[in-house]
Amino acid sequence: MAEITNAVIHNSKECNARMMPIRDAIDIISGKWKLPIILSLTWDTKRFKEIQRDVGNITAKMLSKELKDLEINELVKRTVYDTVPVTVEYTLTAYGKTLKPVIRELYDWGVSHRKRILRKSK
Amino acid sequence: MAEITNAVIHNSKECNARMMPIRDAIDIISGKWKLPIILSLTWDTKRFKEIQRDVGNITAKMLSKELKDLEINELVKRTVYDTVPVTVEYTLTAYGKTLKPVIRELYDWGVSHRKRILRKSK
Repeated sequence: MAEITNAVIHNSKECNARMMPIRDAIDIISGKWKLPIILSLTWDTKRFKEIQRDVGNITAKMLSKELKDLEINELVKRTVYDTVPVTVEYTLTAYGKTLKPVIRELYDWGVSHRKRILRKSK
Repeated sequence: MAEITNAVIHNSKECNARMMPIRDAIDIISGKWKLPIILSLTWDTKRFKEIQRDVGNITAKMLSKELKDLEINELVKRTVYDTVPVTVEYTLTAYGKTLKPVIRELYDWGVSHRKRILRKSK
């Protein structure tokens, strides 16, 4: 693992270079919905309605847009089956699965953050 | 580490409960600037102008707003020194430092993502 957070940075140019990959990652997974959608697909291949139920509170239009973004970035694969009516399934790609450690760290941090907030409100 | 991404989820209620901490984490660190600011402070205590130089491309107004948000969430501490002119320094709190593993995972993922894109564009 790159010890990015322990690195000694000598100037702002170097600092900026180190920030580039983090910017990339944030760009791709940022916003309210991307990670919840990815998380929903982490557990299984799903249909549109199932993802919508998992994520909750997301409009069909927004989910459609977000899934398209994720498809363009090859994190999610959309498969259409020739049934009546047509069946559309969404799967996390092998590449999408590489986000698992990121999700796990966010989850762990979120859990301890929630505990902290609840402790403070007592 | 919670094996969130390998968990077996039985229904959408359970799925939603698991998503809550991830939502919390995203809410706090989302947007274009929060993580770059935190990253800048990971390496050292800094003044406003130094953070602005590190992050690059951020207006003073926006940086001010973002630093205030981070202060409210107790991730960043603002210290004012009684000098002429007044010196203001920003430090990552102990709590802010708990975000390091998240930043590291985002960095690692961003690095491999950048490699992948560059490989594909050849």
